[in-house]
Amino acid sequence: MSKGRRDGGGLESPQRRHLLGRGAALVGGAVVSGTVAAQEAGSEPNGPPNIPDWMKVPGADVGSEPYGTPSPFEKQVVRNIPKGLPQYISASSRTPLQELDGIITPNGLFYERHHGGIPEIDPGQHRLMVHGLVETPLILTMADIRRFPSESRIHFIECSGNPGFEAMSGRTASDLVGLVSCAEWTGVPLKTVLAEAGLRPEAKWVVAEGADAAALTRSIPIDKCLDDAMLVYSQNGERLRPQQGYPLRVLLPGFEGNMNVKWLRRLNVTAEPAHSREETSKYTDSMPDGTARQFTFYMEAKSIITRPSGTQRIDRGYNEITGIAWSGHGRITQVEVSVNDGRTWTVAQLQAPVLTRALTRFRLPWTWDGTPTAILSRATDETGYVQPDFKALTQVRGMKSFYHNNAIIPWRIAESGAVSNGFVKA
Amino acid sequence: MSKGRRDGGGLESPQRRHLLGRGAALVGGAVVSGTVAAQEAGSEPNGPPNIPDWMKVPGADVGSEPYGTPSPFEKQVVRNIPKGLPQYISASSRTPLQELDGIITPNGLFYERHHGGIPEIDPGQHRLMVHGLVETPLILTMADIRRFPSESRIHFIECSGNPGFEAMSGRTASDLVGLVSCAEWTGVPLKTVLAEAGLRPEAKWVVAEGADAAALTRSIPIDKCLDDAMLVYSQNGERLRPQQGYPLRVLLPGFEGNMNVKWLRRLNVTAEPAHSREETSKYTDSMPDGTARQFTFYMEAKSIITRPSGTQRIDRGYNEITGIAWSGHGRITQVEVSVNDGRTWTVAQLQAPVLTRALTRFRLPWTWDGTPTAILSRATDETGYVQPDFKALTQVRGMKSFYHNNAIIPWRIAESGAVSNGFVKA
Repeated sequence: MSKGRRDGGGLESPQRRHLLGRGAALVGGAVVSGTVAAQEAGSEPNGPPNIPDWMKVPGADVGSEPYGTPSPFEKQVVRNIPKGLPQYISASSRTPLQELDGIITPNGLFYERHHGGIPEIDPGQHRLMVHGLVETPLILTMADIRRFPSESRIHFIECSGNPGFEAMSGRTASDLVGLVSCAEWTGVPLKTVLAEAGLRPEAKWVVAEGADAAALTRSIPIDKCLDDAMLVYSQNGERLRPQQGYPLRVLLPGFEGNMNVKWLRRLNVTAEPAHSREETSKYTDSMPDGTARQFTFYMEAKSIITRPSGTQRIDRGYNEITGIAWSGHGRITQVEVSVNDGRTWTVAQLQAPVLTRALTRFRLPWTWDGTPTAILSRATDETGYVQPDFKALTQVRGMKSFYHNNAIIPWRIAESGAVSNGFVKA
Repeated sequence: MSKGRRDGGGLESPQRRHLLGRGAALVGGAVVSGTVAAQEAGSEPNGPPNIPDWMKVPGADVGSEPYGTPSPFEKQVVRNIPKGLPQYISASSRTPLQELDGIITPNGLFYERHHGGIPEIDPGQHRLMVHGLVETPLILTMADIRRFPSESRIHFIECSGNPGFEAMSGRTASDLVGLVSCAEWTGVPLKTVLAEAGLRPEAKWVVAEGADAAALTRSIPIDKCLDDAMLVYSQNGERLRPQQGYPLRVLLPGFEGNMNVKWLRRLNVTAEPAHSREETSKYTDSMPDGTARQFTFYMEAKSIITRPSGTQRIDRGYNEITGIAWSGHGRITQVEVSVNDGRTWTVAQLQAPVLTRALTRFRLPWTWDGTPTAILSRATDETGYVQPDFKALTQVRGMKSFYHNNAIIPWRIAESGAVSNGFVKA
């Protein structure tokens, strides 16, 4: 992990021993006298034997939860629902990124974004119609769709407004970029379904429509449909949750979230895009010269440090810096971390497997000496693109834009160890 | 997918078109007339436009489930709890493998095996003691443990009695081998914690003890502790569920399930194994000559077809055969499938990424002509070991054994398309 290291700010490799004992913040009572060996675990040093109450009685029955749920002690780990936004017409909830480890988002915490509420769909009644510029229009049941050859892939999905350009004041990692999650998806390659219908030569777009009250509609370029696009029915092994499009959604790896149409009921193959609400009035980027960028499909390379992050507090001494990086354009090839507000950068370790268009976990050991600072991360993807800082981004894109904000996110660390959003004046 | 193909029993590659239209079991109404293009999706061919009810009213609010749950239409997909076994003293529930896709098991459906019920542990009160043949005994809080350098790995855990040698009569894939699940785990390498304490030269075993009412205790050889063993606190991104050891468990990739001690409270470093109940009276293999195999740590290569599998029914024509394979010894290198009761074998496709000591999804396209048959799968791992059939296994191991049954599992397919357990007389 020494590659690219250009400063000595506490970034030496952790020693094999006394990791927790280094620095000023020696963990109270962690290192105890040898007499502990004769005691029961759970006791404090030199205290009486301590058998915890939960060992003294039989625990709950197996199967007491046919479908398991988290510990009552984790009940605060839920989706983050912004206050003050109008509900169900257009609303979202965010994944609590700062509470999570690894790259898989559990289904119960996957972010939501709805435009007409969450429909409760009977999969026995649901149909997918494939029509337009095809040789043989199809109406498919869910049983039909599950008969096609299947495929499983781990990919992120991210809302394009994550965060909006004027929404950089959040307190936590979730407040800022909690509209991204990652799962293992299973379904049928879209190209297989289109081949079953038979594309006509003039087919250039596929217009996907959801079976929600908004009939959310997006136009997908045919090249993506014939590349890695899928129609998915399972997420992390089990069937999709209602919030993620049960029983069927489009998966367009790397494309902005709302194009991954949920509750999918229709694929209309066309020569031109539909210019639907969600690709004209919304989900376009207003540029400084008054024009608008339309069909900005791919989410650019991005990263965020999730631990330590806003509202957390660190101790002096050894800390692991960890976070997630991702790019719609492919694999993450490098994540650099700065512990001195961007003056110098150090290459972080990437957790294998590093998958294309999936979250990638990065880590860097750090010993904090108690000096106030700011910590940042920046991602590079396989195209060579490097995540910009907010200033560089807005020089190109201006401040009229809302979507596709992939700026570097700084976390300020105060002398107390308190971590806060570096975009907000202290 | 033609590699290794040695028969023509419907195993040609699926054609680009009319996958669902081939064979006798053309899906009723799936391929419809061109007039459908003018109709609403969801209608039957030539029927009236059909806007489903769930598009006519706003759906449920975002955040109506702060922690999401499956669709009400999936309420039958729960853990499989065997009837007639004494509860909580020694009981298990199984993952519904035949309902799942991909390789990740959602946390709510991860299999359970308890020896004293599920304790409800307050993580703020929980302690891990590391003592015995160490330089510096430690008592660690969960906050201490989370400060260590972390790592995330995708691995399966499997009970060693999956299934017992006399328990081959189950109806479903879950009944037979549902005591295996797979997740992304995050925690600290065990060697890091042992290095913090400092191992004495005579340290050869680490005895792990759980904080359940059984104080489940297992001895782990030091080589494994210094290799890929971990202490894990997160599973599929979020904290461990109570059923899987909240707040802390041992993860020994590839070792039999009960050694992955849950609710971990103590690591006693020793020169000899503890010879605890769970490694003498239980979890040893009685051999034909009256001796017993002890410390048979690694789970051998194994596979099962999950679709089609017992209690399901297939149509003639195109079907995808899919299932899971795994080995405690490393990566799966090959899965072969037979569609003629073991007469010939065809190499199946493996879904990337193929990870060490993780479930691996395999798939094979197959066109069934309606002839009764049996379908089987057999896995090969990176050591070259090939999953044996039940006859070959019992020739070596006899029938007094209970644990470590990794026999090939046959599914019988009747003329009706009904799928049933091939071990059970029709």
